[in-house]
Amino acid sequence: MPATELDQIVNLCKRRGFVYPSAEIYGGFRSTYDYGPLGSLLLRNVKEAWVRAMVQQRDDVVLIDAAILGPPQVWEASGHLSNFTDPLVDCTNCKNRFREDKLDDPNTCPSCGAKNSFTEAREFNLMFKTQAGPVEGSGADAYLRPETAQGMFTNFGQVLQTTRKKPPFGIAQVGKSFRNEITPQNWIFRTREFEQMELEFFVPPAEGPQWYEYWCNERLDWYVRHGIPADMLRIRAHDDDELSHYSTGTSDVEFTFPWGWDELEGIAQRTDYDLKQHSEHSGERLDYFDQPNNERYVPYVIEPAAGATRTMAAFLLAAYDEEEVGDGDKSDVRTVLRLHPRLAPYKVAVLPLSKKDTLTPLAHEVRKLVGDRYMVDYDETQSIGKRYRRQDEIGTPLCITVDFDSLDDNAVTVRERDTMEQVRVPIAELMPLLTEKLGF
Amino acid sequence: MPATELDQIVNLCKRRGFVYPSAEIYGGFRSTYDYGPLGSLLLRNVKEAWVRAMVQQRDDVVLIDAAILGPPQVWEASGHLSNFTDPLVDCTNCKNRFREDKLDDPNTCPSCGAKNSFTEAREFNLMFKTQAGPVEGSGADAYLRPETAQGMFTNFGQVLQTTRKKPPFGIAQVGKSFRNEITPQNWIFRTREFEQMELEFFVPPAEGPQWYEYWCNERLDWYVRHGIPADMLRIRAHDDDELSHYSTGTSDVEFTFPWGWDELEGIAQRTDYDLKQHSEHSGERLDYFDQPNNERYVPYVIEPAAGATRTMAAFLLAAYDEEEVGDGDKSDVRTVLRLHPRLAPYKVAVLPLSKKDTLTPLAHEVRKLVGDRYMVDYDETQSIGKRYRRQDEIGTPLCITVDFDSLDDNAVTVRERDTMEQVRVPIAELMPLLTEKLGF
Repeated sequence: MPATELDQIVNLCKRRGFVYPSAEIYGGFRSTYDYGPLGSLLLRNVKEAWVRAMVQQRDDVVLIDAAILGPPQVWEASGHLSNFTDPLVDCTNCKNRFREDKLDDPNTCPSCGAKNSFTEAREFNLMFKTQAGPVEGSGADAYLRPETAQGMFTNFGQVLQTTRKKPPFGIAQVGKSFRNEITPQNWIFRTREFEQMELEFFVPPAEGPQWYEYWCNERLDWYVRHGIPADMLRIRAHDDDELSHYSTGTSDVEFTFPWGWDELEGIAQRTDYDLKQHSEHSGERLDYFDQPNNERYVPYVIEPAAGATRTMAAFLLAAYDEEEVGDGDKSDVRTVLRLHPRLAPYKVAVLPLSKKDTLTPLAHEVRKLVGDRYMVDYDETQSIGKRYRRQDEIGTPLCITVDFDSLDDNAVTVRERDTMEQVRVPIAELMPLLTEKLGF
Repeated sequence: MPATELDQIVNLCKRRGFVYPSAEIYGGFRSTYDYGPLGSLLLRNVKEAWVRAMVQQRDDVVLIDAAILGPPQVWEASGHLSNFTDPLVDCTNCKNRFREDKLDDPNTCPSCGAKNSFTEAREFNLMFKTQAGPVEGSGADAYLRPETAQGMFTNFGQVLQTTRKKPPFGIAQVGKSFRNEITPQNWIFRTREFEQMELEFFVPPAEGPQWYEYWCNERLDWYVRHGIPADMLRIRAHDDDELSHYSTGTSDVEFTFPWGWDELEGIAQRTDYDLKQHSEHSGERLDYFDQPNNERYVPYVIEPAAGATRTMAAFLLAAYDEEEVGDGDKSDVRTVLRLHPRLAPYKVAVLPLSKKDTLTPLAHEVRKLVGDRYMVDYDETQSIGKRYRRQDEIGTPLCITVDFDSLDDNAVTVRERDTMEQVRVPIAELMPLLTEKLGF
C-alpha cells in the first residue's frame, strides 16, 4: 500500500539520493532542495511525461521557454505587484513574524504565547526582487517570475504570428518559478524555488466552459494514466471566496497526502483578464482575428497549472509499497517503488552476477547496448538478491542479470520489478523485449 | 554552406518562432530572450543530447539538479563574492558606464568622445542578489547562482554516500545560471540569464592531466558527432594570464562564429580548489577514502562547462544552408537547416495533400501514430511544395504526405529533408522506417 507517513518517503529519498536539503554542508538554505542522481532523473521524467501528453501527442499545443527574470511592467500588468501579497504580523514580544490569515488564534502568539502582541498586518509581496544591469536604482529593478504563465501572455502575439495556430490552441511551459513564501512546508510540497508545468489554453469566449470541463477531466486522467490510483485523487471546485482576482472558476486536482487532501494542480478560468491587461499596459493588440466569421476577439484562457516537484512527491507516495515476499521462516519484506516505467529514474539495471573479470566485458557490452536507448544503472556490488532489492526500492522496472551461462549461450535473465518473474532471453532479442515490457 | 552572417539566423529564428526578445511588447528586457515553439524544442534537444552522451551512455557520471538560489556562504567559499567582478568606470561627462578592461582607448570615452573623463575603476560583482524569507536585512541575502558547478561541490559528500561511486567519476548538471554582465552581446551568445551544461569530473590527483586530455577530445568530438563540421571547431589552450584563480590549465572548445572564433565551452582543471574551499568554510570533510590503498585524498576536478544557448546558436549557424534546387527556368533556392535528427525541433511533419475532409481522419491517424514516439508538426495549409520548404527551413528531417491514394493503398510518402528523395511506404511499416531513417 502507498506511503501513509511523509517520513517513509523523505527518508528513502535522502538515503538513496533523490532529494537533499540544499547547501546542507552550510546547514541548509531556507527550505530549498537539491535533486540528487535519482531525484533529478525522476523530476525530469515527470516533466517529460507532461510535455509528451500536453505537447507531443497533441496538435493544438506548442511549447515555449521564457526567461525567469522580467521587468516590473509585466508584473504591473499581471496584477502581481499589487495583489500577490500575504498579510504579515509581527509579535511585539518575541519578534517572530506570521501570516495573519494562517493564525489559529488572531490574538495569541503561537510562538511565545503573548496575548494581543501583534502589530497591524502589513502586505508582504511574494516576488523576489533583484537588479539587472550595471547601474543601481529603481530603473534596474527586475523580478524573478512567481509563475511561468505570464510568458505565454506576453508572447501570445509572436506565437500566433509564427505558428499560425488558431483558437482553441495552447501555449505550454515547464520551468522554475520563485515565491518568497512565509511558511514553506511539507518537504518539496511548498518551497520558495519550485518548478511549474503550465498550459495557457486560448479559446473562443463561448467555448470557455466546455474547455474548462475538458481540462479538468484530462488533467485528472493524466495522473491516473501515470500510476496514481484514482481513489487517491479528486477534483475540488474552489469556493467563491477562494478565487483569484482574475478567475471565474477554478478547480484543483488534489492528492491525498499524508497531511490530508492538498493541491497538485489548479485548473483556472482566467477569462480574457491577462491578455486585456497586457494589451492595455503595453499598447499592443493581443487578440485574434477570426477570418471566416470576420470577427475580432480576445480569447478566453483555461489554465491547467501543475507543480512539478509536488507532483513528483505524489508519484513517490503513491508508488511506495512494502510487500511481504517468500514464506515461512524465509519471509521478508521488500520495499518497492511501483513507479510507472516512464517515470522510473532508471528503466533498466544491468547486474553482472559476480565481479569476476570474466563477466565484465559482456556485462559492459549489454550495458552499452541498453544505455544507447534507456537510462541504465550498473551495479556489481553485493549479492544479486540485495541488488534486486536495491533496484526495487528505487523503482527500476527491469533488471538484467549477466551470469556465467551468458558467456556460452549469449543470453541474459530479465527480471520484472512488480512480479519478480524472470525470463531468459538471447541478447540479440533483448532490446525488443525491453521495449515491449516497458511499453516504449 | 553554413551561415556567414548572424542576421541570417536571427531573422529566421524570429520569423519562424525559435527566439523572441523577452517581454518584447514592453520594448524588450535587457538582452533577455524567450525561446518560442521551435527554439524551446531545439534547446531541449541540445540539453537532452548532452545528458545522453554525458550521463546515459556512461557508467561514471550521475546527474543532479540543484537550486538556483543559494546562501552567501557558498559564494564566499567559491571565491565568487570577492573575485567574480568586472572593473567598471564611469564617464564623468556623459555618465555612461564601461568595462575598463574592454576599452579600446583607456583615456577617451567611446560614447561622448571626452578625454580623461573616467572615474577610477570600481569592482562590480556580477552576481544577482536578492533576499529570501520574510525579514529584510543582510541575514536574508541570497544569490542567483552564476554557475551550476558549485552545486556539484556542495553535494559531493551526499552523492558519494548515496551512489557509492569512486573517482574517477563525475556529477553533471544542466540548468539556468545568471550573471549581471555589463555588456551582453551577440544575440543569445552572451546573455544575463543563460543555461549551462556542466560536468565536474573527480579524479585521483595523479590522473588529472590524462583526464583533462580525455575530456578535451571527447567534448570536441561531441559537437562533431552532432553535426558541426570539424573545420568550424578548434581547441584553444588558455594563456597563463587568462586562467581563473583556481585553474592550472584550461582549454576552450571554440566555434567559428560570424564575429570570429569564440568559446562554446571551457574545459578547466580546477584541481582540488573547490572541495578544499568548501571543506574549510563548512567544516565538513569533502574527500575520498580509497580503501584498497588505505589512502584518503581530495580528488582533482576536470570541468567541461558548456553554454546551452550558445551551443544552440552554433548548431543553427552550422546547419544553415541555402541550396539551389531544380534547373534552368525552374531553378529555385531553398533554405534548409541540416540539423542532426536528434536536435531537430520536429522529427517528422505530417502533411495531408489537401484540406479535404476525406483525408483528415487518416492524416490524424498517422499523426497520432507518429506523435506517440516523436515530436511532430502537422501542417495542412498551402501547396505541398511550400510546406516542404517550410519544413526544410526549420530542419524537419522527414515529411510524411498523406494523399488520396493513401485512402486505397494505406500507404504514405516519406520525403527526406537532405536528399529530397521520396519513398512510398505502407502505414503498417511506417514506424520502423522512421526509426531507421532517424537513427533512433
